[in-house]
Amino acid sequence: MSDPQLAAWMRQRQAETEAALERLLPDARIAPQRLHDAMRYATLGGGKRVRPMLVYAAGELAGANARALDHAACAVEMIHAYSLVHDDMPCMDDDVLRRGKPTVHVEYDEATALLVGDALQTQAFLVLAEPDLFDDSRRQLEALQLLARASGSRGMAGGQAIDLASVGQTLDRESLEVMHLHKTGALIRASVQLGALCGDVPPDALQALDRFGKSIGLLFQVVDDILDAEADTTTLGKTAGKDAANNKPTYVTLLGSSEAKRFAADLRSDAHASLAMFGERARRLAQLTDYIVDRSF
Amino acid sequence: MSDPQLAAWMRQRQAETEAALERLLPDARIAPQRLHDAMRYATLGGGKRVRPMLVYAAGELAGANARALDHAACAVEMIHAYSLVHDDMPCMDDDVLRRGKPTVHVEYDEATALLVGDALQTQAFLVLAEPDLFDDSRRQLEALQLLARASGSRGMAGGQAIDLASVGQTLDRESLEVMHLHKTGALIRASVQLGALCGDVPPDALQALDRFGKSIGLLFQVVDDILDAEADTTTLGKTAGKDAANNKPTYVTLLGSSEAKRFAADLRSDAHASLAMFGERARRLAQLTDYIVDRSF
Repeated sequence: MSDPQLAAWMRQRQAETEAALERLLPDARIAPQRLHDAMRYATLGGGKRVRPMLVYAAGELAGANARALDHAACAVEMIHAYSLVHDDMPCMDDDVLRRGKPTVHVEYDEATALLVGDALQTQAFLVLAEPDLFDDSRRQLEALQLLARASGSRGMAGGQAIDLASVGQTLDRESLEVMHLHKTGALIRASVQLGALCGDVPPDALQALDRFGKSIGLLFQVVDDILDAEADTTTLGKTAGKDAANNKPTYVTLLGSSEAKRFAADLRSDAHASLAMFGERARRLAQLTDYIVDRSF
Repeated sequence: MSDPQLAAWMRQRQAETEAALERLLPDARIAPQRLHDAMRYATLGGGKRVRPMLVYAAGELAGANARALDHAACAVEMIHAYSLVHDDMPCMDDDVLRRGKPTVHVEYDEATALLVGDALQTQAFLVLAEPDLFDDSRRQLEALQLLARASGSRGMAGGQAIDLASVGQTLDRESLEVMHLHKTGALIRASVQLGALCGDVPPDALQALDRFGKSIGLLFQVVDDILDAEADTTTLGKTAGKDAANNKPTYVTLLGSSEAKRFAADLRSDAHASLAMFGERARRLAQLTDYIVDRSF
């Protein structure tokens, strides 16, 4: 991260996300306290907040209002947090460490982890359905549809199902791409679109942003695979080398490390190309693209 | 069920629910097939469809349009189905039988059951956020908020958390009521409200319907407790006597069988009283109230 301005912007947006989540998650003093406490444990005080930053950056480009952006950013982060809690459970990845802390089912218990994920998903839709959030109620309904499509059986949850089915299988590059476009890609792509929907952009701009979102969604996963293969557990804040150990196909195991890095470079170029029509207005989105890559190599 | 007209109406609405669910659940031929197949297994071809019937009955009273009612009925039933799938998992009630069939984690596997519940919840919000479903987009947003509130940490999922915390505890009557008003009551109450929101009713009528929904929500649970204590597994289609065996407090263990039946009779009177202002227009809701009671004794 060479741009000190970007670093300041990221810190500010991360702080804004944290403050909005604090406000939009149920208070831990309200019953059922243990559930609310665990929902906050799973969501607050950690994470890079990549998805909220994409919401904000796309929203700035689209001239969105601040309140709608806060709610959209939190909705996306709550969906992301719910997926991590469920993904870490014993019947899925069975992981004990997340963001440098014990996972929810370890810190609390399995039944609570199940309910935490369930209730975080609901909270995401509650927060995005808030009355008078958008100037145009029809656009708000569109945003809710978009979030649901990106998270559901043909988006993120579908990607998890494809991932499950792929353990121990030899996937080709196309199948791996389909899995990742769903598992992580769909929600990242939706983050960019949601930020834009909070404001007002013409259809061709929305399409360009969707191409951008698709490229960085995949980029994010390729970089994650590289990180997982190269970093150690302390740096990562989660168990490293887990995918390879679980015999899960990754871009690194499939393509090798240097070809995976070449693929990441291509996706980065595609992403920048999709932003060309916006010129200087897309500066933050362009910088975030580079940040996604540079956190690894 | 003494009224042959009611029986015909129920059969018709159950068939309509089934057809709408068929249409609004993802096609099992679309990838990821196993997930979609399991989502359909969990939702189709079973269940009394009490919540959809309440949506339709309240909608008839409110002059609602048929398409909005179909979507609202399916959304509520998908939330209900998701909660059953997760509730049956080993880390929760660990049940093997539901609606006379093996539970999802038994028929498929635990990871799939987790994703089925997750994706069914998302599908519920997707279905209710469908464009142009309501004449008034703001009212549709209100319906989405209502469904999220009723399902989330301060509604159904919260009730599950209170239930978890109560295993092995001695609950007093008030605590038991708080638990049930959340666990089963919130979604039943929301079903009535959703049906009404699909049409157009004045605020005082909405309030009366909410009182009605609260009474039958609790009534439903009291009757369930009585059924669970008295019926056998074959009649029930799920494992009977499970709550008592798990040392979970029920209205029957707390109050005894005859006092629990007296309480049910009181709630039934309350429910009918809340419908008084609607006269003949509330006939179906009144009949459904009696049906809820008469299925047991």
